[in-house]
Amino acid sequence: MRIVVTNDDGLRSPGLRLLYEAVRELDEALVIAPMEQASAKGGMLTLDEPIRVYELDLTYASAYGITGSPRDVVHVAREVFGGLDMLVSGINIGENTSIQNILVSGTVGAAAEASLFDIPAVAFSADVNKPSALTERGYADFAVSVARAVARYVASEGLPSGVDLLNVNLPRSPTSLVRVVPPARRRWIEKLDRRVDPRGQCYYWLYGEATEPEPGTDSYVVFVERGIAISPISLSLKAVDISLLDALVTEVSSALKVKS
Amino acid sequence: MRIVVTNDDGLRSPGLRLLYEAVRELDEALVIAPMEQASAKGGMLTLDEPIRVYELDLTYASAYGITGSPRDVVHVAREVFGGLDMLVSGINIGENTSIQNILVSGTVGAAAEASLFDIPAVAFSADVNKPSALTERGYADFAVSVARAVARYVASEGLPSGVDLLNVNLPRSPTSLVRVVPPARRRWIEKLDRRVDPRGQCYYWLYGEATEPEPGTDSYVVFVERGIAISPISLSLKAVDISLLDALVTEVSSALKVKS
Repeated sequence: MRIVVTNDDGLRSPGLRLLYEAVRELDEALVIAPMEQASAKGGMLTLDEPIRVYELDLTYASAYGITGSPRDVVHVAREVFGGLDMLVSGINIGENTSIQNILVSGTVGAAAEASLFDIPAVAFSADVNKPSALTERGYADFAVSVARAVARYVASEGLPSGVDLLNVNLPRSPTSLVRVVPPARRRWIEKLDRRVDPRGQCYYWLYGEATEPEPGTDSYVVFVERGIAISPISLSLKAVDISLLDALVTEVSSALKVKS
Repeated sequence: MRIVVTNDDGLRSPGLRLLYEAVRELDEALVIAPMEQASAKGGMLTLDEPIRVYELDLTYASAYGITGSPRDVVHVAREVFGGLDMLVSGINIGENTSIQNILVSGTVGAAAEASLFDIPAVAFSADVNKPSALTERGYADFAVSVARAVARYVASEGLPSGVDLLNVNLPRSPTSLVRVVPPARRRWIEKLDRRVDPRGQCYYWLYGEATEPEPGTDSYVVFVERGIAISPISLSLKAVDISLLDALVTEVSSALKVKS
């Protein structure tokens, strides 16, 4: 079994090293990741530019750096390295709770791309704000233990039917509280900070103000209960009750009949 | 009611003009779009760079061009222009059927971002491969009629509960066949084309080979039935049967107990 280990913080991220440590004993672990930081590019594929693949020595493992996005990694693994049986992504520096974060996360994006090709995938993120908080001894041991246990389970059992990937978020401090919960809807209210450049021209910075987490969601587990949140994610995107749209079909049909 | 009209092909796209024509009579229509082509950046927010907003005259409308992504447009509308009541995105040059396309589409990404802020949103895409195919007289009339009928319906009725956005795909030729269907899972099998640059170094281009569409999906409607596919999209990402993961919780807990 070949497990691809990737990351959206780039090849130099200590989260990548911890994740490699977590899974290396399970089977063949192959590190392929974007050369540079590629956060908030979860939904990006590199179509307009070439992708280059560089072989590198990371001291702890040989690895491949690519010039593309985390999603591209899946296709490089499939097409250049002969395929993959499982993908683990992370450990991201910064949490990825809530639908809002999941949809733009590079960490989760790589896992989503793998799952579209029926490859079991797990995304790991930690609610830490800098690399040194992740590698602090007690925390690194905790993070590696969780990642190894989850990866081992998925490698041996696979994912339940209807589950496309697991999104795992670790709280700021080690804990043994583990909960399986769906993602919250929103974690942030985006704001634009208006600024003026030295030439007197206006520009904006996008940032998010945190919202109050709703009980029973991944954000609540991580920020209020300070537990480990495991969210089984379905990518079906299917709305359940679509019969209400019959009237819409009628409207569109009428508009087209009037035309012709 | 203020309707924001956006696009991921950039401000110069004729699809943006057609969509503006479709909705301008409904209420106040405000055009805000990325300055440049931003396809396959559906899951991207601009966090590491400033966003600039430029006022422009598009001859058919005054408009605002931004240096960010389609998702950023929603936040520029909320924070710089005082909010929006509905968002329409498109008409994209190129279809956006299947989960695979939806997750990376800038056209759908803008709509998804709006829906996270409880703003009704519709994404429109057409199975045409160049701007001139979209603006060919008979086709442009068809596309505007469909977009207007759908936008008018959503503006007056809103979206059914549990539906976050509508993803509308138009077939290559005008038709009056309309179907409400969920998205297909996969539209492409991604490939990497290996090439050698003039200095003898290897690089890759990512592209997709189309798969056979499954009946009852958006791809099937557009490519086999040649109809208009309206897909009500849920962004809940929630997997239904999560009880099977109890064993995983036990495994993670045990791993952590062994450590401590």
